[in-house]
Amino acid sequence: MKNFEGHALPGCYFLTVGVLWSVKHPIKYLMQRKNENISKNKWYQYLELLEGLGKVIIALVGILAGQFIPEGPHLHLYTEDHKWVDLLTWTHGTMYFTYGLAGLVDILIPLPLGLPPGLDRFMLSQALCVEGFLFYFHAHHRLALDQHIHSLMLVAIFGGAFCSLLEVFMRDNPVLELLRTTMFLLQGSWFLQIGFVLYPPWGGPGWDQTDHGNIMFLTMCFSWHYLGALLLFIINYFIVYWYVVGPGGGRTVCADMTVMSPGLCQ
Amino acid sequence: MKNFEGHALPGCYFLTVGVLWSVKHPIKYLMQRKNENISKNKWYQYLELLEGLGKVIIALVGILAGQFIPEGPHLHLYTEDHKWVDLLTWTHGTMYFTYGLAGLVDILIPLPLGLPPGLDRFMLSQALCVEGFLFYFHAHHRLALDQHIHSLMLVAIFGGAFCSLLEVFMRDNPVLELLRTTMFLLQGSWFLQIGFVLYPPWGGPGWDQTDHGNIMFLTMCFSWHYLGALLLFIINYFIVYWYVVGPGGGRTVCADMTVMSPGLCQ
Amino acid sequence: MKNFEGHALPGCYFLTVGVLWSVKHPIKYLMQRKNENISKNKWYQYLELLEGLGKVIIALVGILAGQFIPEGPHLHLYTEDHKWVDLLTWTHGTMYFTYGLAGLVDILIPLPLGLPPGLDRFMLSQALCVEGFLFYFHAHHRLALDQHIHSLMLVAIFGGAFCSLLEVFMRDNPVLELLRTTMFLLQGSWFLQIGFVLYPPWGGPGWDQTDHGNIMFLTMCFSWHYLGALLLFIINYFIVYWYVVGPGGGRTVCADMTVMSPGLCQ
Amino acid sequence: MKNFEGHALPGCYFLTVGVLWSVKHPIKYLMQRKNENISKNKWYQYLELLEGLGKVIIALVGILAGQFIPEGPHLHLYTEDHKWVDLLTWTHGTMYFTYGLAGLVDILIPLPLGLPPGLDRFMLSQALCVEGFLFYFHAHHRLALDQHIHSLMLVAIFGGAFCSLLEVFMRDNPVLELLRTTMFLLQGSWFLQIGFVLYPPWGGPGWDQTDHGNIMFLTMCFSWHYLGALLLFIINYFIVYWYVVGPGGGRTVCADMTVMSPGLCQ
Repeated sequence: MKNFEGHALPGCYFLTVGVLWSVKHPIKYLMQRKNENISKNKWYQYLELLEGLGKVIIALVGILAGQFIPEGPHLHLYTEDHKWVDLLTWTHGTMYFTYGLAGLVDILIPLPLGLPPGLDRFMLSQALCVEGFLFYFHAHHRLALDQHIHSLMLVAIFGGAFCSLLEVFMRDNPVLELLRTTMFLLQGSWFLQIGFVLYPPWGGPGWDQTDHGNIMFLTMCFSWHYLGALLLFIINYFIVYWYVVGPGGGRTVCADMTVMSPGLCQ
Repeated sequence: MKNFEGHALPGCYFLTVGVLWSVKHPIKYLMQRKNENISKNKWYQYLELLEGLGKVIIALVGILAGQFIPEGPHLHLYTEDHKWVDLLTWTHGTMYFTYGLAGLVDILIPLPLGLPPGLDRFMLSQALCVEGFLFYFHAHHRLALDQHIHSLMLVAIFGGAFCSLLEVFMRDNPVLELLRTTMFLLQGSWFLQIGFVLYPPWGGPGWDQTDHGNIMFLTMCFSWHYLGALLLFIINYFIVYWYVVGPGGGRTVCADMTVMSPGLCQ
Repeated sequence: MKNFEGHALPGCYFLTVGVLWSVKHPIKYLMQRKNENISKNKWYQYLELLEGLGKVIIALVGILAGQFIPEGPHLHLYTEDHKWVDLLTWTHGTMYFTYGLAGLVDILIPLPLGLPPGLDRFMLSQALCVEGFLFYFHAHHRLALDQHIHSLMLVAIFGGAFCSLLEVFMRDNPVLELLRTTMFLLQGSWFLQIGFVLYPPWGGPGWDQTDHGNIMFLTMCFSWHYLGALLLFIINYFIVYWYVVGPGGGRTVCADMTVMSPGLCQ
Repeated sequence: MKNFEGHALPGCYFLTVGVLWSVKHPIKYLMQRKNENISKNKWYQYLELLEGLGKVIIALVGILAGQFIPEGPHLHLYTEDHKWVDLLTWTHGTMYFTYGLAGLVDILIPLPLGLPPGLDRFMLSQALCVEGFLFYFHAHHRLALDQHIHSLMLVAIFGGAFCSLLEVFMRDNPVLELLRTTMFLLQGSWFLQIGFVLYPPWGGPGWDQTDHGNIMFLTMCFSWHYLGALLLFIINYFIVYWYVVGPGGGRTVCADMTVMSPGLCQ
């Protein structure tokens, strides 16, 4: 992980999931407003299955790649003289494993095994909690700037964990889906930002660790990433709205809704 | 911001919003008790629209004024020799932007775009979260008294953010509306207090930063501001009550309510 | 406050309120199980009114006594040479004021003024929040043992504030009423404990501030106070049960309940 | 407690409770899905009673054993020259007492005493809160590794307390039952881990307290314990599923459910 690629890979993973959700959730929400229960749609169910499979496969690849790259621990946890072998890789493997487990539950939920409906959100929240827990101790004993930008990540991780836990009890709430999506986008883009700050891909040393201005800028930059994630979601919402409801369709849908529950469209 | 005006302006903004809400929410609540759904009233909808527009305009003015005053950064983020330009103004601009975004959503909600009803409260809570996040790091590296009074502000900011987030799920709850309003009034009046303490408008140096008695007094003073906000809301409630229900009208309304749901007026 | 009486007085106040509630809430709960809505009972309404009046009167007495005892500040906040006068008394007066305000709202709630039902719990929670806020800064800059036992009080204060805030949304929940009552009993008995530890009424110096064993014992002692409060509530519950339901009455009540909602009495 | 057995005993207690719940809760959940209300089953009620009795007996044994082992305090709290006697044993006795009280309430709940249904969960949450409160101060003033592994325990304790408190208001939620069970399993297995790290049963000194690698490994190890607890629950769920629903039974149950509430089995 001590290079640009090591931060770019998880960054792209979280960004991809976030962009996917920023399209999927508006589609689901707008279809439901049109009284079409998309969760019974075959293609939608395949998509959900693919999402779970994707998580499992990426987790497996992440664990195996970390273990079996030439400088990896090759499944050794400690050496013969009782020294720990490459604990960082084992830590990353643990994080991948929890996301893999969450993906496995995503796959099992639709099967007739009687699993309770909120379990997938719960496993996601637990994966984020474990990641945040490991990240928290991970960020100790570093230089000021390095520690600061790793600590900011905890806001995105625990924000997502809190949101997923709420979704166990309030499933399909569009505001919580928005929050979860933006937290994933924020985590992804912030991983990339860390990579650019500490290990610039065009070579050269990272940013000056001791400059207080850098810390001030990156704090503000973190909120820009969040606002960017919000704006991306909003833009995708309107693109989806255009395709699902169609131009001028808003009024029609709204009229339909008003018949059923007057007062909904003010 | 390093002067009285810089603290008085946001102070007056939050105070104005707080006073407006301390009149608006009792009206809405008392009308609903009389079975009049004020949220369908045309004038009320115009008022809501004006509120959103006001937020957007103030945000735009705030951003542009900060950027283009003579000593402002004029949209330069860093100089040619890679030094950051006036990060404080950029930080304030970010805060204004989030409130502007919340105002924009206020305007979009009534349009037939299918936006979920709690989104306006969520965006307000996010604006407060971003403000609190930036304020938290903003207050580091200061003198004891300066840091203390800036830290107290976090109580008002995150109190308001927590309250707005709850309102996503419990809309139109009069107790939450009271809490949100008092948190805005507290934030506004505390901005003014900070201005008076650090940069007295009648000239002269600010209060003694090292006197422990000053810190003790200002801590207590913060709770006086909060109690003052509560009392203002209560007084406005009774003034509105007098106009909406009328003298002696309480009994009538109550009698009406008892017919519909016995036990409500004990 | 720097003597035994100064801690014994608030201690007795909170203990009295706690003991009163440990009798009142079981009566209300057990009457409701017998389908008797005690909140419509005239004597119960007088009791509620008395409770509110008691809070207001004690608050007024507390404020005036603090101000006008010979060594009190006599409403002077600062001297002519701009020194703060007796800020501790002003702080205690602020705490009394918030409880008085909560008592005032208790009195106003039953009047036909349209006040929302959860407002009394909210004002109580705000009184506790303000007390906890002032206590938190109050306990700084003290000796180890002194600071420790004042900090433990925050558990009781914020526990009560959290519980009262929940009751705004979940009124008449017997478990929350139990928690609130035990938090008040705990606060009351811990005030007395602080008095005995720091200013023993039989004279002599307080406990050794530097002995780590004292800190360890008082930490454990705090949980004993809490367990004692729980046991007192349980004992009062059974005494009330004996009078309200009567010996052998449990089975009858239970049989009645089963008819209405089978499965309630397992 | 300063030996392996002192950590192994509470460890086994929590592990046993956790394993019991990891079988009991899936049975209850899957029976309810088959529309069989297991909580009315006589044997299930005996099991619940046994659980409560077990808690009370273990608490009594724990308190008495701690007091009356040869080196115990024999009910002396302080010596004649006012020194505290063996406060650690008194602290452990307090923890046992709270679990015993929770067990007593478990026994009283089914009796026709009108106790509110969530009271058992509340008492469990209070037992965990008291344990966590005492543990928090217990872990101060120790060596780095020792303090770290005792602090991690607080995650399991307060996680369980938070979950039990939620169950007061959301009883029989399968996700919360899963979380509570894993928190107990985690607490149990982590007690054993502490025993192995600090007092290896095969003799010799404990792990090196100053090696940062040990702290890093044990942090990761804590999340492995949690993942292990999750996996144990999942395995037990599928074993129970096999016995209760039977092979191929899933489809039948699901079909039944779909008739009643279409859309539940997607």
